[in-house]
Amino acid sequence: MLLALDAMGGDNAPKETCAGAVMACGKFPDLEIALVGDTEEVKPLVENAPASVRTRLHLVHAEEKITMDEPPAVAVRKKRHSSLRIAMQMVRSGEAVGCVSAGSTGAIVAGGVLVVGRIPGIERPGLGVPLPAVDRISMLIDIGATVRCKPMNLYQFALMGDVYMRKIIGVENPSIGLLSNGQEEVKGDELIIETREYFRKGKLNFIGNVEGGGIPFGVADVVVCEGLTGNILLKFIEGTGEALYSLVRDEINRRFLPKVGMLFMLPMLKDLWTRFNYEEIGGTPLLGVNGAVIKAHGRSRARAVCGALGVARGFVSKKGVETIAEELSEGVRTE
Amino acid sequence: MLLALDAMGGDNAPKETCAGAVMACGKFPDLEIALVGDTEEVKPLVENAPASVRTRLHLVHAEEKITMDEPPAVAVRKKRHSSLRIAMQMVRSGEAVGCVSAGSTGAIVAGGVLVVGRIPGIERPGLGVPLPAVDRISMLIDIGATVRCKPMNLYQFALMGDVYMRKIIGVENPSIGLLSNGQEEVKGDELIIETREYFRKGKLNFIGNVEGGGIPFGVADVVVCEGLTGNILLKFIEGTGEALYSLVRDEINRRFLPKVGMLFMLPMLKDLWTRFNYEEIGGTPLLGVNGAVIKAHGRSRARAVCGALGVARGFVSKKGVETIAEELSEGVRTE
Repeated sequence: MLLALDAMGGDNAPKETCAGAVMACGKFPDLEIALVGDTEEVKPLVENAPASVRTRLHLVHAEEKITMDEPPAVAVRKKRHSSLRIAMQMVRSGEAVGCVSAGSTGAIVAGGVLVVGRIPGIERPGLGVPLPAVDRISMLIDIGATVRCKPMNLYQFALMGDVYMRKIIGVENPSIGLLSNGQEEVKGDELIIETREYFRKGKLNFIGNVEGGGIPFGVADVVVCEGLTGNILLKFIEGTGEALYSLVRDEINRRFLPKVGMLFMLPMLKDLWTRFNYEEIGGTPLLGVNGAVIKAHGRSRARAVCGALGVARGFVSKKGVETIAEELSEGVRTE
Repeated sequence: MLLALDAMGGDNAPKETCAGAVMACGKFPDLEIALVGDTEEVKPLVENAPASVRTRLHLVHAEEKITMDEPPAVAVRKKRHSSLRIAMQMVRSGEAVGCVSAGSTGAIVAGGVLVVGRIPGIERPGLGVPLPAVDRISMLIDIGATVRCKPMNLYQFALMGDVYMRKIIGVENPSIGLLSNGQEEVKGDELIIETREYFRKGKLNFIGNVEGGGIPFGVADVVVCEGLTGNILLKFIEGTGEALYSLVRDEINRRFLPKVGMLFMLPMLKDLWTRFNYEEIGGTPLLGVNGAVIKAHGRSRARAVCGALGVARGFVSKKGVETIAEELSEGVRTE
């Protein structure tokens, strides 16, 4: 299986993207990776990889790269030789079965729509992130692909999230919640009220409005919202994790007793960390585009890039794109 | 100082609201409270209060109450004898200097606008909640008064948040951030981009777009957003606290070593808890209405009701409403 990796995308590229590619090839013996980027920069980063891995890493030269501060749609259109665009063209042409990038969300979405193209019938793509909740993995969609949405967009996110949870994660009849400011039917704005109409007519396992407080408890398998809300929420989650970590660290450094206590708690904290470590889960699929496009976090290091490549591999082998396209055309879960 | 308390509002009313009133009168010797509600229910709940407190608790009968599942604006209009409406009428008439309710947000907002009335020039009220961040208190406004906003609404929330932070919390030249899906100017939707125009012309200490990840770090003294987003975020914060608590409790019950560790960590955890305990902070002011209207959390127990009464007392003694009205009419921080 050949995946294209945007070697130049992300805050720690190309060093960590390349290290992640080496790690992933070590982990998955069936994986080949096209490292798309400035060959001069990329080559020295992988030449010391074990021979069994090195033979499965292919260098694809890209003269340009897209940075975080460019207007994404413009950058994707203009920079025809950018690493992101070339990686996506490999998906479009069938050369690669999927691609991974830790670059700007906007550029990945624009590239997904412009280069890879949408699945027929899908109006706007959605980025879904699997969030660890108390007793399950809950998918939050959209987290930034479509900033403001129409009711149809939200409903299609739900359709795609449903397929993803069933086929990729293996959840039977996933419950779908619409993120709102209250569970009651009267809550929400026009967008939310009109979206409920779509659910009423459709065949999804829609459980109604859900509130922000339900997310950490896994109130629904798929939680649907506009990209603006999802993005703010996801970044808030990341920020809270960092803030809590720094607070507890400072407190522990200031006192003696908690240091002792910490030693006793380490095994538990390690377990919880593994369960909730966002990086381990890795990438988020851009659902609705006609190819496997996986976005890794902009701050990804090797481990997270490897995780995202793993997500791409799973999405491809479980035929994620084909299933969404098939079910949409057959109307399996629509009216 | 006489405050009106909606004794029937909230999940734990009237038992906990009355207990909170007794607590607050014990804490603040200058406070008198009108307990608005079903006198038959309320009376037995306060008759055992110490005499010094009991003399400052006044029973005001209300035949009706507004429940959580009624469409709020309709309920406020129709139930003219509801405890919430009577408490607000006492503010309107000047009989009470402010009121507190743990009832439905929608009903409090509707009552604030319909009964108490808006400050001239303010189009929509905003509920601001002081959130504890790493090194400061950061105000998030709006958390549900105005579900969807126009640019003018968001700008007015910022104006009111600025006054609140300066006059009530005592922050000099508060920084104002606009919650968006990225810091860059190109990020956000039309609403956010148009709101930036207002800030460009105004005199507030506007620091630009802020992201969700900045909130726990106190990226700005005032973080402005639509009510829908703010509500989802606030409830998510509460839910995460509860989920973490239950996870850690379960883990600790399952293992022996962490139990020992916990003993060592208790003093630290208690300190952190006090610093971040939302209930201790208590109520949130409904800014933009022409009277001190404080909303307590729907799940409030006595301690939180007492906290909200304390917030109301502070807001009244620091002339919160008058200052907002004055500064708006004089254009102190506007163009």
